[in-house]
Amino acid sequence: MPEMTQVVDSEVISAYATYVVIVVLKMMLMAPLTSYYRMKKKVFANLEDTKLAHPVEEPKFVRVDPDVERVRRCHQNDLENVVPFVLVGLLYSLTGPDAATAITYFRVFAASRLCHTVAYVLPLPQPSRALSWLTGLVVTCCMAYRVLLHNFRL
Amino acid sequence: MPEMTQVVDSEVISAYATYVVIVVLKMMLMAPLTSYYRMKKKVFANLEDTKLAHPVEEPKFVRVDPDVERVRRCHQNDLENVVPFVLVGLLYSLTGPDAATAITYFRVFAASRLCHTVAYVLPLPQPSRALSWLTGLVVTCCMAYRVLLHNFRL
Amino acid sequence: MPEMTQVVDSEVISAYATYVVIVVLKMMLMAPLTSYYRMKKKVFANLEDTKLAHPVEEPKFVRVDPDVERVRRCHQNDLENVVPFVLVGLLYSLTGPDAATAITYFRVFAASRLCHTVAYVLPLPQPSRALSWLTGLVVTCCMAYRVLLHNFRL
Repeated sequence: MPEMTQVVDSEVISAYATYVVIVVLKMMLMAPLTSYYRMKKKVFANLEDTKLAHPVEEPKFVRVDPDVERVRRCHQNDLENVVPFVLVGLLYSLTGPDAATAITYFRVFAASRLCHTVAYVLPLPQPSRALSWLTGLVVTCCMAYRVLLHNFRL
Repeated sequence: MPEMTQVVDSEVISAYATYVVIVVLKMMLMAPLTSYYRMKKKVFANLEDTKLAHPVEEPKFVRVDPDVERVRRCHQNDLENVVPFVLVGLLYSLTGPDAATAITYFRVFAASRLCHTVAYVLPLPQPSRALSWLTGLVVTCCMAYRVLLHNFRL
Repeated sequence: MPEMTQVVDSEVISAYATYVVIVVLKMMLMAPLTSYYRMKKKVFANLEDTKLAHPVEEPKFVRVDPDVERVRRCHQNDLENVVPFVLVGLLYSLTGPDAATAITYFRVFAASRLCHTVAYVLPLPQPSRALSWLTGLVVTCCMAYRVLLHNFRL
């Protein structure tokens, strides 16, 4: 029976770890960006948060703003796409893929998500956002396909 | 010290990988389904998206629709349940569970999420959706219980 | 080439598994809490759910309530923070960190999320929620930093 050390390519795992951290940090960056827009536009979701922007309690600050909602939708889209990439990517990395192919997948995915965020937040005209989203989706599906075909022998 | 090859059952890991890919792909399928409903009902979240449906910019298409929101809630529920299953399931698979039990857990969970999606999107009368959601939750909790009791010796 | 058994500290993996299960279960607990508030305040997102609260179909129960939305925002914040912690934490655990440091990270993160939930749901005055959120974020970033610097040799 082959050992874990033979099955797992350390180059693939290293690249996987690096790109996972990059896309997860990018995803987490959406939270401070949301806070920035909330502060800038004085738009809050909770009554207790309004005191951070203004010493006197201001219920009128508790409302919905298109710019804030845009950043939140971008964050949500990250959750819906980055998390599957990380989960499927881990299993994909354990299938012993060709290192060059794997690293290409990771890079294309990371680039597609950076483009998606820029296209969403600015925003750029469509279909820039749709295409960057689709690119990431295709990468995850390619990896998922290989995982389904693979017979794990750890 | 036992080796990884002795601790991890390759049958369990193979089943885990297969069912993870199935439920994650099912979860990701909700995004195209949302797009389909948005196109069909001409309901968009962003002004720049309305051009995809109509060459002339149509701010009136930027609105909320009950059918679109239903699919989005289903997607959100997947995120809230499938992701914990995958994360806890990985640790569970490393505890060296009985293969038949593990595969039963994975199958029941995958079936429960498929039922949940059908019950949510159609929709079917309650409590079909509540019961399918609960079934998945119980599976994840059973796996979490075993992880908590297990002393990892890798 | 070093073996998996030498690289991975079983104490770190055991602690990782325990704290992952704790924070994921806490996150999943937000769903029943949302249901509880929906039942208590008779506020539902779907028409078919209103029958669970009342035998006669009551469209007026399909509405938005501030208390229910508060719990849902807390759940969403968990998704946005707990999932990155679990994903980055797994890679961090494989970098062979000092066990005491790793366990401290896990404990601080778990405590910060418990505080965050209490601060959000009650709610406590700000900046209690902001600080507990920030604490968790800093822990995840510290772990991410180590993963980026680490050269994986499995």
